[in-house]
Amino acid sequence: MTRFSAPAAKANHAAMHIRPASSADAPAVWSIIEPMIRAGEPYALDRNLSRAEALAYWMGADKEVFVAEQAGAILGTYYMRPNQAGGGRHVCNCGYVIAPEATGRGIARGMCEHSIATARAHGYRAMQFNFVVSTNQRAISLWQKMGFEVVGTLPGAFRHPTHGYVDAFVMYQAL
Amino acid sequence: MTRFSAPAAKANHAAMHIRPASSADAPAVWSIIEPMIRAGEPYALDRNLSRAEALAYWMGADKEVFVAEQAGAILGTYYMRPNQAGGGRHVCNCGYVIAPEATGRGIARGMCEHSIATARAHGYRAMQFNFVVSTNQRAISLWQKMGFEVVGTLPGAFRHPTHGYVDAFVMYQAL
Repeated sequence: MTRFSAPAAKANHAAMHIRPASSADAPAVWSIIEPMIRAGEPYALDRNLSRAEALAYWMGADKEVFVAEQAGAILGTYYMRPNQAGGGRHVCNCGYVIAPEATGRGIARGMCEHSIATARAHGYRAMQFNFVVSTNQRAISLWQKMGFEVVGTLPGAFRHPTHGYVDAFVMYQAL
Repeated sequence: MTRFSAPAAKANHAAMHIRPASSADAPAVWSIIEPMIRAGEPYALDRNLSRAEALAYWMGADKEVFVAEQAGAILGTYYMRPNQAGGGRHVCNCGYVIAPEATGRGIARGMCEHSIATARAHGYRAMQFNFVVSTNQRAISLWQKMGFEVVGTLPGAFRHPTHGYVDAFVMYQAL
């Protein structure tokens, strides 16, 4: 039987499926965003947000939310929203989080690719990240590979839980 | 009697008083922000916002709101709020609007000076404007005189009601 059983590591290479989140996904979304919120980085969110507050933020009415599944497990989530109202509605903003145990599997890249395709399909003309913490080199490098450019630097705008005051970047790409 | 009567133009030079807004100021605040909202610029707000929606935005629980009075009339309003939560809470964001008939009286400058002093008193370390429309030269020039620098350029991020897609600037100053 051994040769027919799937090794546990197989899940790392299973196909990723990204789909709109439903309210039934809230427990999985919370399990992914809670460690990031409690860590106080890389997103500028209050570390003591309750589950309800965090889900109201991440899955709020102003956002479209997606989840990334691999081998039946939800391992990542992202949101998309207009970055500004009125004359700024043609630029979207997204935020991405992956489960701590799921790094290195291409999930962030897969969600970013999906978000860019979704944004184009929705008619957005550009995508903007308002606050990319400068110490988050892994993310910055990925966003640059995905076509984003640093268009602004906010000096000392993020108080990092271990590094103290560090810069944050504004990143942007026309779609 | 003529030499003792105050000419109407005198109001232009009357002292400005800036104070926290109360709910009783909502009608005056609405009369100031409505023309800006209906014009679709310079702030990126939906032009068809209702009075209730606009006041919920401008005077929302996340903001401190002030009004500028001159000769008993409310001629300007500004808000202050943390620009980000969590590790970004030490940077504030403000928005300023003056009544259409009150331009050229130094009200914008007075409110900006007041906001910088208030921000310092509140312990903020910096002030950021997220979305200064590049065609709003008068405001940009004033903000620069007040110590702000352009730290980012968002290409085509604002659809101006008459100029079409124009850049927006991110402006920043350490306090």
